[in-house]
Amino acid sequence: MKTILVVGIGTGSPEHMTIAAIDALNRADVLFVPDKGADKVALADLRHAIIARFVTGQPRQIAYDVPRRDAAHPDYGQGVDDWHDALGRIFSDLIAEIPADGTGAFLVWGDPGLYDSTLRILERVETPHAVTVIPGITAIQALTAAHGIALNRIGEPVLVTTGRQLGPVDTDTIVMLDGRLAFRNADPDLQIFWGAYLGSPDQILLSGRLGDVAEQIVTTRAQARARHGWIMDTYLLRKSR
Amino acid sequence: MKTILVVGIGTGSPEHMTIAAIDALNRADVLFVPDKGADKVALADLRHAIIARFVTGQPRQIAYDVPRRDAAHPDYGQGVDDWHDALGRIFSDLIAEIPADGTGAFLVWGDPGLYDSTLRILERVETPHAVTVIPGITAIQALTAAHGIALNRIGEPVLVTTGRQLGPVDTDTIVMLDGRLAFRNADPDLQIFWGAYLGSPDQILLSGRLGDVAEQIVTTRAQARARHGWIMDTYLLRKSR
Repeated sequence: MKTILVVGIGTGSPEHMTIAAIDALNRADVLFVPDKGADKVALADLRHAIIARFVTGQPRQIAYDVPRRDAAHPDYGQGVDDWHDALGRIFSDLIAEIPADGTGAFLVWGDPGLYDSTLRILERVETPHAVTVIPGITAIQALTAAHGIALNRIGEPVLVTTGRQLGPVDTDTIVMLDGRLAFRNADPDLQIFWGAYLGSPDQILLSGRLGDVAEQIVTTRAQARARHGWIMDTYLLRKSR
Repeated sequence: MKTILVVGIGTGSPEHMTIAAIDALNRADVLFVPDKGADKVALADLRHAIIARFVTGQPRQIAYDVPRRDAAHPDYGQGVDDWHDALGRIFSDLIAEIPADGTGAFLVWGDPGLYDSTLRILERVETPHAVTVIPGITAIQALTAAHGIALNRIGEPVLVTTGRQLGPVDTDTIVMLDGRLAFRNADPDLQIFWGAYLGSPDQILLSGRLGDVAEQIVTTRAQARARHGWIMDTYLLRKSR
């Protein structure tokens, strides 16, 4: 049977690579590298830098296009489903390139368990295969480390959610994938710890009382996005005590 | 000024070490290694294995006792506060051992941001010092990787909480630090993905409908705890769909 390694490569810094992730890339016969299409060019560059730095052999590298999700689809779930279908066909073609009983590896930004589709798309691939997941540093950890703070208060819970799902903040909350800037509608007395391009040399951090820094975040974010052509950001909202 | 590196060493496997964490240990003049007292002996062994494997120089190593928190304290918050006070005094003594303008490193299980006290205790240390946090793989990532699952459903939130705080499960929930086995009181129709000694050769995984596997988890957990003398476990509760 073919083996698929789904390898978390961390968030923005090659230094986030774990020994397990490095070993995984080095035992793969084929590395799958999304480097065109909707995926951010800078992320492709990071993947190539990681391979150049840590992979000692000469595994075959197969680049592939990541199709764009139809963000305008009136049914969010159906839009995601169509997109996963398209990716499932691409993954089937990629896996066909793995030699019999060989090993292929996907390099996944952050951790394969957190707001990433790779595992779900692999479930759509009919070719028999075994999946091994290698955990990676997430944007959550990169955010709290960069701010020098703990994620949780003592013994308290934390909610991890998306901009789309952000409601009233009763629990300390991490927000990911927030293109709509949902923090603008949150209680201005919350504290925010915001970060973009976390882990990378371009990292930007802002924090403070939400009402005091929200506009600065909006402006900084827009300028950075214009300069880089893309942005990935994450933030923690926390009640003041 | 003295520099304190708070280094996440991952969860149970030396292979969880990141390049950044390895570099951090190698630039420290002093490594602080909790290896007696209340901290688990096995965790001390892992720290020593990590130092032996990844630290190439000969930094000074200072072992210290971790005092036991008074779990019977009638006021949970006050019990934690007293414990942090005691640890703060120990940390002050440790930091006094760092040479002027030198660097000391704490090796923190998992990630320094997630249910760990090191950052909060350092805030109690009056000696001027700069803190740098190096993120590490958490038990959450080790759990989902071991089960080969994503943490979140598509676009859905996840709550991270403790056994003490676990209430009715409306949102997919990660439970950590659950010595009281709070899952026994949860809806039996939930799915559970449970893991102990995650990342280590002793790793145990169980999953299924909660009502079907809860007793097996209780028994397995008790037997493993008796065999090892300690246990660290984590689980994900998720509604069936």
